[in-house]
Amino acid sequence: MLLPMAPTDSLFLLGESREHPMHVGGLALFTPPDGAFAADVREMFETALAGDRVATLFRRRARRSVTSLGQWGWDTLADHQVDLGHHVRRDALPRPGGMDELMALVSRLHGTLLDRSRPLWEMHLIEGLADGRYAVYTKIHHALADGASAMNLLAGSLSADPHRRHMRAPWQPTPQLAAVPAPPEPMPPMAPAPGLGVTTALDLAGTAVRAGRTVAGEVAGLVPAAINTLDRAARGTGGTLSLTAPHTLLNGPIGGARQVAARSFPLERIRLLAKHADATVNDIVLAMSAGTLRGYLHARNALPADPLIAMVPVSLRPTAQPEDTVSGGAGNRVGVLMCNLATHLPDPGHRLETIRDCMREGKAALREMSPAQVLAMSALGAAPLGMEMLLGRRGPLRPPFNVVISNVAGPRTPLYWNGARLDALYPLSIPTTGQALNITCTSNDDQIVFGLTGCRRTLPDLNPMLGHLDTELDTLERAVGL
Amino acid sequence: MLLPMAPTDSLFLLGESREHPMHVGGLALFTPPDGAFAADVREMFETALAGDRVATLFRRRARRSVTSLGQWGWDTLADHQVDLGHHVRRDALPRPGGMDELMALVSRLHGTLLDRSRPLWEMHLIEGLADGRYAVYTKIHHALADGASAMNLLAGSLSADPHRRHMRAPWQPTPQLAAVPAPPEPMPPMAPAPGLGVTTALDLAGTAVRAGRTVAGEVAGLVPAAINTLDRAARGTGGTLSLTAPHTLLNGPIGGARQVAARSFPLERIRLLAKHADATVNDIVLAMSAGTLRGYLHARNALPADPLIAMVPVSLRPTAQPEDTVSGGAGNRVGVLMCNLATHLPDPGHRLETIRDCMREGKAALREMSPAQVLAMSALGAAPLGMEMLLGRRGPLRPPFNVVISNVAGPRTPLYWNGARLDALYPLSIPTTGQALNITCTSNDDQIVFGLTGCRRTLPDLNPMLGHLDTELDTLERAVGL
Repeated sequence: MLLPMAPTDSLFLLGESREHPMHVGGLALFTPPDGAFAADVREMFETALAGDRVATLFRRRARRSVTSLGQWGWDTLADHQVDLGHHVRRDALPRPGGMDELMALVSRLHGTLLDRSRPLWEMHLIEGLADGRYAVYTKIHHALADGASAMNLLAGSLSADPHRRHMRAPWQPTPQLAAVPAPPEPMPPMAPAPGLGVTTALDLAGTAVRAGRTVAGEVAGLVPAAINTLDRAARGTGGTLSLTAPHTLLNGPIGGARQVAARSFPLERIRLLAKHADATVNDIVLAMSAGTLRGYLHARNALPADPLIAMVPVSLRPTAQPEDTVSGGAGNRVGVLMCNLATHLPDPGHRLETIRDCMREGKAALREMSPAQVLAMSALGAAPLGMEMLLGRRGPLRPPFNVVISNVAGPRTPLYWNGARLDALYPLSIPTTGQALNITCTSNDDQIVFGLTGCRRTLPDLNPMLGHLDTELDTLERAVGL
Repeated sequence: MLLPMAPTDSLFLLGESREHPMHVGGLALFTPPDGAFAADVREMFETALAGDRVATLFRRRARRSVTSLGQWGWDTLADHQVDLGHHVRRDALPRPGGMDELMALVSRLHGTLLDRSRPLWEMHLIEGLADGRYAVYTKIHHALADGASAMNLLAGSLSADPHRRHMRAPWQPTPQLAAVPAPPEPMPPMAPAPGLGVTTALDLAGTAVRAGRTVAGEVAGLVPAAINTLDRAARGTGGTLSLTAPHTLLNGPIGGARQVAARSFPLERIRLLAKHADATVNDIVLAMSAGTLRGYLHARNALPADPLIAMVPVSLRPTAQPEDTVSGGAGNRVGVLMCNLATHLPDPGHRLETIRDCMREGKAALREMSPAQVLAMSALGAAPLGMEMLLGRRGPLRPPFNVVISNVAGPRTPLYWNGARLDALYPLSIPTTGQALNITCTSNDDQIVFGLTGCRRTLPDLNPMLGHLDTELDTLERAVGL
C-alpha cells in the first residue's frame, strides 16, 4: 500500500539531481569503553547486523506509480525485504587514519546519490582511526527525515548510562513489551542549548509546513507567501528581509562532488567571549563565520565591497519572547533572520557589534510580527531548495543571501552506545545551486562544532576555513580584551 | 573549444540514469617487488600524484551547451584545471582485508555515478589487503573509453621490465621527447589470446561504428539495420539470430546498486579440457557459464524450460576465417553470435556439445555473410543499451538473449609498474534494463578470469555463482574422462 508523502517532502525527491543530492548526514565519533578497542565497537555493530528487525522508518521506500497518478508515496517493506548489507556498510581509512582521511572519505560518501529503489538511507561503520575511536557516518534522504529528526533517531538509540549493554543499533526498532519488561531508560532530551541558535535551514521546510498546517490548515498557501517574501528580499524593499546580498563565488551553480570539514571549540570559551561582548553565543558563532568568510574571500581576491548576508533560522517560543534556539520539533514556531555579516569591515570588534545589533533588531521585529507574517518568513527556510524551484537552476542575479548559518541542538549530556561514548556529532547538510556552502553548528554541554558542507568544485579545499575559524576566535577574544 | 563527440559515445551519456550508470571498470591487483610492501606501492602513487601533468584523455570533460545546439561535445581542460585529488582517491579495506572486503568495496564504487562536471574517470588506490598486495580500481565512463581501450590505457603505463622504475602513473601523459631521450620501451601488445573469444558487448558499439564509418561512411545507417536485426531475433525467424530466449529473473528492470565478483582459473586446465572435448577454450568458458546459470536458477526454482541464450561477441579476422577472439582495436571486424546455452539439459557433457555445435554453425554462417550483413549483426553489440533506447525501459516481453558473455584480451606477458607485478585484472561491465548480469572474461598467458557484474537487487549475492563455476569445471573434466 502506498502511503501519501507530504508535498514538501516530495519536493526533495523532485528537486534532486546528480549535481544536487538531497540527503543530510551526520558523522558520529565514538570512544570505546575503558579496556575496549574500536574493534569491539565494530563487533557490537556486527552482532546487531545479524538481527533481522528493522525500524519502520528505515523500511520506507519512496515510490510513484500510475495508480498514484505519478505522485510520490511511501511503501513500507517487510523486514526481510530490506537488504541490510546494502544499507549498513563497513569502511576503513587509509593510513595514517587521521581526521584528514576521515573527512576525505565522508566528503565522498556525502556526494553520492542514494539508491531510489530501496529505503533512502545508508550507515557507514568506519574503522582505522589512529586515535582508537570508531566513526559512524549516516546518510538519510531529506524526504525521509530532516537533520534534526535524523539526530533524534541516532540519539534515541543511545543511553546516558555508560554501563548499559545489549543496546539496539540505530536502525533497529525499539523493543516491544517483552515478557519481562525492561526498566524504563531515562533518555536525555535533545533540548535547545540556552543562548544558542537556530536549526538547519532545510529543517525549516518541514517545520514551517507543520506549523502551517496548524495555523492555516493549508499547505499550498505557503507558496504564494514564499514567493512574495522572496520577491521583497530580491527587490531590497521592506523590513528585516530587505538586505540585499552581493554576488560571491559561493552563489553560482554547483557540481556533484562534496567537501566537508568540521572543527570543535570549547563552549566555555565562547560563552566567556559572549559575556564580555554583551552578545549571545550565537552572535559569536556568526562573527566567527563572518571573519572566516571575509578571510577566505579576501585571500582569493573575491571579497565583495558590500557585506555578505547570512540567512539565520531562529526559534520563536510561543511561551515568551523569541529565543535564538530551535530544537526542530513539530509545532515550534520558527523564523528566519537575514543577518548582515559586516564582512566589509576590517575590524573584528566592529563586525561583532554590527552582527549583534542586526540580530537584536531582527528578533525585535520578529516579536512584532503576526504568526502569519512569521510563517511567510519561515517559508524562506526552504529557500535553498525553493528558490531553485521558483527561480530556475541558475538562481537569481543577486542572491537573497550568501550563506546559511544554522544550528541543530545536540545532546545535552554525555551519551553512550554499549559503553562507547559519543564524542562528537558533526552535522552535514545540503549545498544547492546558488548556495555552495552550508555552515551548520551543533552544541552540547561542553563544545560547539562547526560543520561545513561545500561543493568541491566551488570550494576545492575547506581547510583554510578551519584555520580562519581558529584565528577569528583568537582575534575576537583580543578585541574584547580577553 | 567544444570538440564533437561521436553520436554513439553520446548515447552513453543520454542513456545514463541513476539506475543505469554507464561506466566500465577494472580492478588490478599488484604484488609489490621483492623486499617491498604495499605501502611502498602506495608511496609511488603518492609521488606520481604530486606531479601536475595529466594525459589528454583524462582532461576531457563532456559538455553540451546552447551554442552546440544541445549536442554533447568534449572540452579539454588544462592540467591545472583537473582536480587530481577528486579523481585519484585513497581507499582502505576493513579487516580482515580479504577478497570479500575488496569485492564489497569495488561493488559499491562501481555503483555510483561519475561527476559530470569533471573529466569522467576515477582511480581508487586501495590498501589493506591482508595478503600484502595493492589494488587499483579504475572507473571510466563509456562515453570516454570502452572496456578494451581502458585496459589498453592501463597496460600502456606498465612495462614488461620488472626492474624499471620512475614510471608514469596511468593518468600521466607519455613523456615528451626530453633532452636525453629515454631508450624505447618494448611494450607487450594487448594481443588476442589464440583459441579464446570475444570482447565486451559494449565495446562493439564503438567498434561497429568505426567499422561502419569505413564500410558505409554513415553512422546513422546502423540504426535501421539494428532494428531489423533485433526484430528478426525477437520474432524468431531467420538464420543464426533466430533463437528466442526465455524470460528469466536476469531480464527485468534493474536498480542502481551493483554486485561484482571474480574468479580465476588456470588456462592450462581449460586448454586440456577443450582438447579432450574437441572444443575451443571459449566453448569451455561458455559451458562453464551455462552450467553456472543453470545451477543458480535451478536452486531458486527459476530455471526456464527453454534454454538460455547468450550473446557472444566474436571477431572476424579480415585475413582469414573468423577466430573467436577480438582485441577491440579500431577497424576490426566483429560479429555477434547467439549461443544456445542448453541450460535445459541436465548433463554437462551434452550442454558442452550443444554449445560447441552452435558456435561452429554460427561461425560458419558468419563467414558466409557479407560485410554489411556482419555489420548489421555487430550493431547488436550495442544491444544492451540500444534495445533500451529502441524498445523502452522495460525491454521487450521476451528478451532477444538472456546474458552477454564476452572477453577482453588481457596482456600476454607479465607486466610491472615500478617493479610491482600486475597479478590480475578483473573487468567490470555495465548491467542494463533486461540484462541484470554481465559475464566478462579476460585471459593472459596462464589464467583466465571470470568477472561478473550484476544488479544487486536482482542478484543480491554472486558468491553462489563463483561456487557453481568451480563445480562446473570439475564436472566437465569428469564428463570428458579427465
